[in-house]
Amino acid sequence: MKRLCVMATMVGLSVGCVFGQKEEIRLVEPDKGRGEGVMKVLEKRKSERAFAEKDLSAQDLSDVLWAANGVNRPDGRRTAPSAINAQEVDVFVITREGAYVYDAKEHLLRLLTAGDFRKAVAAGQDFAADAPLSIVLAADVSRLRGDDERAKLIGAVDVGIVCQNINIACAAFGLATVPRATMDKETLTRVLKLKESHLLLMNNPVGYPKK
Amino acid sequence: MKRLCVMATMVGLSVGCVFGQKEEIRLVEPDKGRGEGVMKVLEKRKSERAFAEKDLSAQDLSDVLWAANGVNRPDGRRTAPSAINAQEVDVFVITREGAYVYDAKEHLLRLLTAGDFRKAVAAGQDFAADAPLSIVLAADVSRLRGDDERAKLIGAVDVGIVCQNINIACAAFGLATVPRATMDKETLTRVLKLKESHLLLMNNPVGYPKK
Repeated sequence: MKRLCVMATMVGLSVGCVFGQKEEIRLVEPDKGRGEGVMKVLEKRKSERAFAEKDLSAQDLSDVLWAANGVNRPDGRRTAPSAINAQEVDVFVITREGAYVYDAKEHLLRLLTAGDFRKAVAAGQDFAADAPLSIVLAADVSRLRGDDERAKLIGAVDVGIVCQNINIACAAFGLATVPRATMDKETLTRVLKLKESHLLLMNNPVGYPKK
Repeated sequence: MKRLCVMATMVGLSVGCVFGQKEEIRLVEPDKGRGEGVMKVLEKRKSERAFAEKDLSAQDLSDVLWAANGVNRPDGRRTAPSAINAQEVDVFVITREGAYVYDAKEHLLRLLTAGDFRKAVAAGQDFAADAPLSIVLAADVSRLRGDDERAKLIGAVDVGIVCQNINIACAAFGLATVPRATMDKETLTRVLKLKESHLLLMNNPVGYPKK
């Protein structure tokens, strides 16, 4: 299985098989030369709610996650700014195989819970469960100064910042996505192993547009 | 004065003079072909706190505002998604001449209060007052369903989305910026004529990097 996955990744096939419930999924190198000019991409930016069944390619998955909140400098700073550089926004990925957390430093996905929790993301809005995966965003406000209302609002702003990176990357790569606040928070809190200090706020189903 | 301003805009000089406390400042057409590839821009994205004194060019001002929350479709939808398409994030500009609101539909700035309120944005952090202008973001949560804590968090997410458009546009155009939550909210609430339902959350000083 492992060898098959590595081969599939090498030849640029879908990452469906690399989601084989391994503890770690190493992502391919992000392609930093990719994507049209920023203004062209902003002109194309729109929410799309109809997804093809096809899994994301290894390159698309890697590039969207790095764009979302990847490390873009040797000192560990990110594509997404955060208040007092707290880096409090955690990025999770829900696929048909499992619930994963994105480790930006290592650029890999770590399995949290095996199983298909896409319906928990959809929470009754079926189109969202059609997407091969969803990216889920939660701010751990304990990494900010205080956990009062102000800290929650700052965490929410920082979640929005990461969310727009996803929206822009999808527009650039011809992927469909829509930012959503609806989800089954109880189930996702459990399978994503969130702490009480996590503010679970947004998700983006991501896939190829349905023709 | 008016003729001088128009001429300056036509030959692409700074817009310092078009901020002549006119009631309306029509912005030049956004240049939608502009900006490097998205991944290159995300690689460059960083916070910068040292600004040259020089005013923003008419093109840079236009492009940053359109990128932030401009109309990108015939139906009036925006570069920045918003919950239930409420378009609740208002974009304000503070220059040495006045406090303005960005009218996305008409792509122009409307004067709210004449005067230099950049120190109210800086709120003691002098570098922020050095920038020729700051973009200030507030969510009018009355445009969302309800104004409870959940609506405030959604408004904050949507402010973050607009903020990251500004950060990315600045990275693309070689402009310096830093997203900030610090500001003199009392003064800005007054000069921006905010309603009680406005959640004043973020600002971005914008200028050319200090050499």
